[in-house]
Amino acid sequence: MTITIIGLGLIGGSLALSLRQHGLADQLIGVENHLPYARRALELGLVDEIHADLGAAVAPAGLVIVAVPMDAMLTVLPQVLDLVTDQQTVIDVGSTKGNLLAVVARHPRRRRFVAVHPMAGTEYSGPDAAVRGLFEGKTLVVCDAEASDPAAVALVEALFRALPMRVMYLGAADHDLHTAYVSHISHLTSFALALTVLEKERRGEQRIFDLAGGGFASTVRLAKSAPATWVPIFRQNRENVLDVLDEHLHQLQKLRELLVQEDYAGLTTELEHANAIRKIIP
Amino acid sequence: MTITIIGLGLIGGSLALSLRQHGLADQLIGVENHLPYARRALELGLVDEIHADLGAAVAPAGLVIVAVPMDAMLTVLPQVLDLVTDQQTVIDVGSTKGNLLAVVARHPRRRRFVAVHPMAGTEYSGPDAAVRGLFEGKTLVVCDAEASDPAAVALVEALFRALPMRVMYLGAADHDLHTAYVSHISHLTSFALALTVLEKERRGEQRIFDLAGGGFASTVRLAKSAPATWVPIFRQNRENVLDVLDEHLHQLQKLRELLVQEDYAGLTTELEHANAIRKIIP
Repeated sequence: MTITIIGLGLIGGSLALSLRQHGLADQLIGVENHLPYARRALELGLVDEIHADLGAAVAPAGLVIVAVPMDAMLTVLPQVLDLVTDQQTVIDVGSTKGNLLAVVARHPRRRRFVAVHPMAGTEYSGPDAAVRGLFEGKTLVVCDAEASDPAAVALVEALFRALPMRVMYLGAADHDLHTAYVSHISHLTSFALALTVLEKERRGEQRIFDLAGGGFASTVRLAKSAPATWVPIFRQNRENVLDVLDEHLHQLQKLRELLVQEDYAGLTTELEHANAIRKIIP
Repeated sequence: MTITIIGLGLIGGSLALSLRQHGLADQLIGVENHLPYARRALELGLVDEIHADLGAAVAPAGLVIVAVPMDAMLTVLPQVLDLVTDQQTVIDVGSTKGNLLAVVARHPRRRRFVAVHPMAGTEYSGPDAAVRGLFEGKTLVVCDAEASDPAAVALVEALFRALPMRVMYLGAADHDLHTAYVSHISHLTSFALALTVLEKERRGEQRIFDLAGGGFASTVRLAKSAPATWVPIFRQNRENVLDVLDEHLHQLQKLRELLVQEDYAGLTTELEHANAIRKIIP
């Protein structure tokens, strides 16, 4: 099968590597508007060819993967659906679903589109961030599967299960709510933690570098993530993100108050409660 | 040289493994008040013998390492200093220094004591958490070195450089300030993030587990850490921790306000600023 990938960054590029590695694509076609990325994707062999024209890129594809930032997604996905036939399947790999599914809800080719979110990533971006095995053992969320042709869903599942990924079904609203908890808030707090440390240590960067152990690196690494990726995600999922952020601020204020009051028994009880996360993240 | 390690948890146990691996200890003696830990440390071969009596454990040692939680440290370190001669050296490996150094400031054996903090750890605790290579390539902070005998400092440096670790000097006040930024606040935000998600997903733990990608795991993993380790650290370094926490709350409120106002250009500017952490944590 010929597969066309629109957007050759971290996710699009890593999918290209994974699909090739598992023999799932005979031919990989790329679309990438940012010219340095397009050149680099060819140099790295992520795709076999790059087409500047969307129609020419989509026409030969059995599957079209749209892997652009969430703001561009809202305009690119309908353009792609305008171009496909009933024999072709289209997926997005976006991090938010509610607005996107509303945009294409009445599109005549809606049933050829399957909304998926591979729950994997790193803090890096662009074709050089593409890594083999990024999706291995991770979860693929298929959203509102009943709105897609069963044959299209079956094709998409078969491909992603071969990577191999686990497949899970969620409604778009549930997806957006849960990803706010397990992904979006982690990024927001990491950005804020980086700003905190940068603000407090303006003249001591080398000292932070020397002192920073693994704990610091793991909590701030997400703050290296691209604003061009994350601002559109926060924007599309604004209400859920604000809701979780308010809960997080409440929890931080509670810990702060226990420390202010020197209530160390109370603080111990809270941290013991937080330890319950061990059952969830083994 | 015979080395005695008081407290055979993550840090004490990992030091035992490292010292043995590099041939730096002929004989390793342990002291561990928690009997299941004492038994386990012997089973794992962390130490050659365990002494219940502090005097018997300290007497044959060229170097005594005190690796107990920060609350116990304030009483155990003076007890150990009461027992040593001018031929023995004592170190702590605690995460805060100000209060501890004040407690032993006028001790007659103060100059045989070298205050160090190996900047390494994991979220696990107890003898089973001991890992080979934990300190390799990490930084050892030596605090207020001028208050210790140069020969004692030289011995300690030689041992830790052999692991191998980099050695850095800081005043105790600076140490406590900087570790609040690069370690203590990361733990506090991680505990709060775990509480946030647990609060919001009371009935959906399996769902979080399925959805959680690497970003979530890396930001909440510190929330698995032992309250018995961390409450005493937050207590000893309370003023610095509250200071950094207030800055962090301010940064989170700033990001929240930009999202509330839908000021996405402003949000982009802030996240680009946060990206400067790339220069510090490569």
